[in-house]
Amino acid sequence: MISSTANDAIAAEVARRWNSLTKPPGSLGRLEQLVTRLALIQGTARPVVRRKAAVIFCADHGVTEEGISAYPREVTAQMVRNFLAGGAAINVLCAQFGIAPAIVDAGVDSDPIEGSIDMRLARGTANFAVGPAMTREQAAQALRNGASLAREMSTRFDIAAVGEMGIGNTTSASALLCAFAGAGPEEAAGPGTGLGASGIARKAAVLRRALALHAEAISSSDPETILAVLGGFEIAAMAGFLLGAAEARMAVVVDGFISSAAALVARGIDPRVLEYLLFSHVSAEPAHRRMLDALGAQAILDLDMRLGEGSGAAMAMPVIDAAVALYDRMATFDEGGVTQKA
Amino acid sequence: MISSTANDAIAAEVARRWNSLTKPPGSLGRLEQLVTRLALIQGTARPVVRRKAAVIFCADHGVTEEGISAYPREVTAQMVRNFLAGGAAINVLCAQFGIAPAIVDAGVDSDPIEGSIDMRLARGTANFAVGPAMTREQAAQALRNGASLAREMSTRFDIAAVGEMGIGNTTSASALLCAFAGAGPEEAAGPGTGLGASGIARKAAVLRRALALHAEAISSSDPETILAVLGGFEIAAMAGFLLGAAEARMAVVVDGFISSAAALVARGIDPRVLEYLLFSHVSAEPAHRRMLDALGAQAILDLDMRLGEGSGAAMAMPVIDAAVALYDRMATFDEGGVTQKA
Repeated sequence: MISSTANDAIAAEVARRWNSLTKPPGSLGRLEQLVTRLALIQGTARPVVRRKAAVIFCADHGVTEEGISAYPREVTAQMVRNFLAGGAAINVLCAQFGIAPAIVDAGVDSDPIEGSIDMRLARGTANFAVGPAMTREQAAQALRNGASLAREMSTRFDIAAVGEMGIGNTTSASALLCAFAGAGPEEAAGPGTGLGASGIARKAAVLRRALALHAEAISSSDPETILAVLGGFEIAAMAGFLLGAAEARMAVVVDGFISSAAALVARGIDPRVLEYLLFSHVSAEPAHRRMLDALGAQAILDLDMRLGEGSGAAMAMPVIDAAVALYDRMATFDEGGVTQKA
Repeated sequence: MISSTANDAIAAEVARRWNSLTKPPGSLGRLEQLVTRLALIQGTARPVVRRKAAVIFCADHGVTEEGISAYPREVTAQMVRNFLAGGAAINVLCAQFGIAPAIVDAGVDSDPIEGSIDMRLARGTANFAVGPAMTREQAAQALRNGASLAREMSTRFDIAAVGEMGIGNTTSASALLCAFAGAGPEEAAGPGTGLGASGIARKAAVLRRALALHAEAISSSDPETILAVLGGFEIAAMAGFLLGAAEARMAVVVDGFISSAAALVARGIDPRVLEYLLFSHVSAEPAHRRMLDALGAQAILDLDMRLGEGSGAAMAMPVIDAAVALYDRMATFDEGGVTQKA
């Protein structure tokens, strides 16, 4: 059960404090709105974002058989090892911004990788261009696993970033954009990690084929059914995480294109989940803007990033942190001896 | 003398390192470009942004006589005291991001304020709606003072943010936008700290009057002459700072609308200054986008902020810092044991 965050008393108290601080009313723009959102999520006019986590969901994708990625499939497991060794972009950003990383193996095509959180349901999904990506039971299990992790982490962290790694997963995210938001395959297909024009055309053709194959599942409008036929294990586990975090009233900072696809799935299951999500950035993946529009989301940053791993979500953390610091620590007009606006 | 930053060897070396790191080429977007810019500015493929300053230029404006601000003139001095006491937004952000603040009194209408850097040329400018804001000698002196501060700070800091405080200074910045970039008074006038529609109309009328009064000075196209008739002491000192920093090859992070007006002035004096400037954010002040376009600048953030004080520039510091950290600390494909793109 996800509760609505609506609370007029808290919203009014936050507005009152912002307007008492030594700055023109509203002049901190999005920073003021972010604190209001956090206050409503945490159910207190003094929200806290001290303990920060980044949860990186990783899995492989059967659809890589179709030649839709610029990188070979083994890179997923290699990058998981890179995360655990501390050498990836997300590690540098976590160290930089005081974020604790957690690496989830939701179904990587390798032997179990020591140091990762084990949610493995299989060594990658099946190829959704020729059949369902996973069974409905696997989808449900991945959702439960993600939700359970979120509940556990909500006792140790004030806010979590989510990101992912999975060669082939922009194709799954694009398919989910088509299924959940009615985008066309050409609109939804993009370069991912670096496809050229012919690669993007091939990806669009694969999407078209998959959407036709799974037309019945898609027309059911049942989010778990759609997730099962088109999703990935990391996307499913992340969607569960978002739902579990919302139940536990923990704010989640959502990364880019694939993470937003998980938000589309979670929103399909319970639309109130959106009240708990902060969208970190607009990805350079072209269809991400369309996806954010479908979610009614306004991203915090637009840095032309397209790396995944939660890197965009981590980049938004100092903005969120600074917003709360300003709200907590600025002098009021009285304290600062400053004349208010007439 | 400002040198060009162009250096193909350094640019190639930076690109080579970015492409050796465990991520798809180009996938860190603007972050990669920022490091390239810093490398060219500092003349090394391993730029450093460890020691960070924020320099806040403060002054009063005679044009406040025209009733163009939502706040009374005494707020400038009050806010300078708030900066020195550590209670303002910029103080919180400096503490948050490891930035050393420096408060410059370039001409505040008060007795000298202990703890500020004294560049006082007068207790505020004259009202530029009825005569020149300052003498040409004052403008030249303010430019020299700013440049001299930048040279001194460049020995102690790797990068500086610039911001300002001065009741009435959006009107001066708007006038400079008209004079340097051909904007019309209605296009250039905005709410500043919080004017309503009638206040904005009054501001546009004041601008129209001032532009007519100073038509001859403006048509001279001499940047120091235009600065003298329409500028502010803080804008003049900041323009000097930008030029001095560029001479000393120190990167400067430019705040919002008023700081960008100082960049317009500095660009008029020497266009190469732009190679040393990073524009931090798009202000909510409507004409800022027009001003950034005139400067050919792409801002890092767009958070709907409109506070000044260098707050937007400070917010961009963790982005710049993170870009350099990623570049310095990520594992290469070899180190990480990750397969490169085919």
